[in-house]
Amino acid sequence: MVQVLRVSANSRPKAVAGALAAVLREDGAAEVQAIGAGAVNQAVKAIAITRGYVAPNGIDLVVIPAFADIEIDGQQRTAIKFIIEPR
Amino acid sequence: MVQVLRVSANSRPKAVAGALAAVLREDGAAEVQAIGAGAVNQAVKAIAITRGYVAPNGIDLVVIPAFADIEIDGQQRTAIKFIIEPR
Repeated sequence: MVQVLRVSANSRPKAVAGALAAVLREDGAAEVQAIGAGAVNQAVKAIAITRGYVAPNGIDLVVIPAFADIEIDGQQRTAIKFIIEPR
Repeated sequence: MVQVLRVSANSRPKAVAGALAAVLREDGAAEVQAIGAGAVNQAVKAIAITRGYVAPNGIDLVVIPAFADIEIDGQQRTAIKFIIEPR
């Protein structure tokens, strides 16, 4: 199972990037989920920063963005999921 | 030179996806630029839709997000650029 990191509009991109880099070094892949424009923006910034964090480990990260239907508090929402893998 | 598509918060993701798919089928790669959370969100949605548009052409798209310093009306702004390539 790939670990899923949830990012909100209030997430700090550098903090997310640190966590994401740790998961990627451990597991080789990860998934980031975001709901709403603010969250998607922070997620994208975090992933851009993460590329720099893991590049010295020889990892050339690529991202696959996709839609995901998820349930929050019984309500159906459309999230963006970013599947993050080495190229 | 890779073609650059600029996306705004008001861009319709499906329209951007159509344009992006055409560029990708022609050139094999493309770049999408967005400034601000609303624009980044529309860009990500457009790219997710584009994956479906070009998958029947045997293209498995991946994305590399990066920061880009660009100048608009003489002002320095930080954009997100999405480099879009086949895996």
